[in-house]
Amino acid sequence: MKLYHFWLSSCSWRVRAALAAKGLEVELEVVDISAQAMQQDSLAYSVRNPMRQVPTLVFDDGGVVRELGQSTAIIEYLEERYPEPALLPKEPWQRARARQVAEMVNSGIQPLQNIRILERVSAQGGDSGEWAISVIDRGLQAIESVLASRAAAFCMGDVLGFADLFVYPQIYNAQRFNISFEGMPTLARIAESCAAHPAFIATHPDLGAE
Amino acid sequence: MKLYHFWLSSCSWRVRAALAAKGLEVELEVVDISAQAMQQDSLAYSVRNPMRQVPTLVFDDGGVVRELGQSTAIIEYLEERYPEPALLPKEPWQRARARQVAEMVNSGIQPLQNIRILERVSAQGGDSGEWAISVIDRGLQAIESVLASRAAAFCMGDVLGFADLFVYPQIYNAQRFNISFEGMPTLARIAESCAAHPAFIATHPDLGAE
Repeated sequence: MKLYHFWLSSCSWRVRAALAAKGLEVELEVVDISAQAMQQDSLAYSVRNPMRQVPTLVFDDGGVVRELGQSTAIIEYLEERYPEPALLPKEPWQRARARQVAEMVNSGIQPLQNIRILERVSAQGGDSGEWAISVIDRGLQAIESVLASRAAAFCMGDVLGFADLFVYPQIYNAQRFNISFEGMPTLARIAESCAAHPAFIATHPDLGAE
Repeated sequence: MKLYHFWLSSCSWRVRAALAAKGLEVELEVVDISAQAMQQDSLAYSVRNPMRQVPTLVFDDGGVVRELGQSTAIIEYLEERYPEPALLPKEPWQRARARQVAEMVNSGIQPLQNIRILERVSAQGGDSGEWAISVIDRGLQAIESVLASRAAAFCMGDVLGFADLFVYPQIYNAQRFNISFEGMPTLARIAESCAAHPAFIATHPDLGAE
């Protein structure tokens, strides 16, 4: 398998960590989505991923090469094709809750604070920093409410799972914006557990700076 | 089951249509998310759905009342709990493709053109109409590219499925913004099939105007 990704992209980190959690080997190829490079808009990449976003997973499907974009679709595919260790809980309600939390990040926070959108906000004369902090804080507060009745190390229990793959990279982004987690003790605890987990350590954005 | 929804919300329509496609009965309760009403911000609703968004599905889970937000999580839950008729294809790559297309709408288009965001764009002095048209057109063009090699009536074949639940309500929004589908013949064909499908007719946003 090969993953087109960018080290600082939170959507890419979700998939890198999912692959690591399942012990799957993958060849990594960087697509530089920084404002100076914009490699995601190249013809070569936009054919693989018409949304011109990272990540894209390329894999062999019984002799046919497939190119799959969108991080949730990729992680759901990995979960179906390589079921163990499982990322989703077994019980239907717990599975639903894990997917809800993941989607709160994936549709409720991340798209509103990605590089392309923040540049648009600036271009329209808005304050992109204030915009980003506001959408991230609002979304994480909502996730804190959903998870606050739980006392486990990770979102859905004592092992790393589907929801953590989305929540922790978003928390890491929030920390880069200096958002305080004082009022979000549950997320602060989950962040500590994730920061110490081998699947996140082995795939950390800092590795891209080396 | 009870669904908190808004007739014009595309995320709500996805779930209404999923329930209809599976022949499931649901009690509907409107949460008026229009700028004048903003009922999603009421204390009563925000406890059910801390993201303060529609839809929320309320259901009995072995004697426990559960409240589940986020349309993809809801539809995946319905698919697991009521597997027939299936909305996702059986084959892993086809399932992945269906989820990819759904996510292109759910994280790549819809969040960037919902009411709350368009109001923020206006408040910052931007042109919310131009913003909405640009993100919708960009996203639908990408979906057209992904689906263009197919010749079926719906996104993934000749029956209504998971991806259509996301794509058609987004196309309906695009039509309200007068976006042209001349360069998107695949989506134009899918829109025609969906517009004529009982699951969309029985749950159409226009029913809210009656």
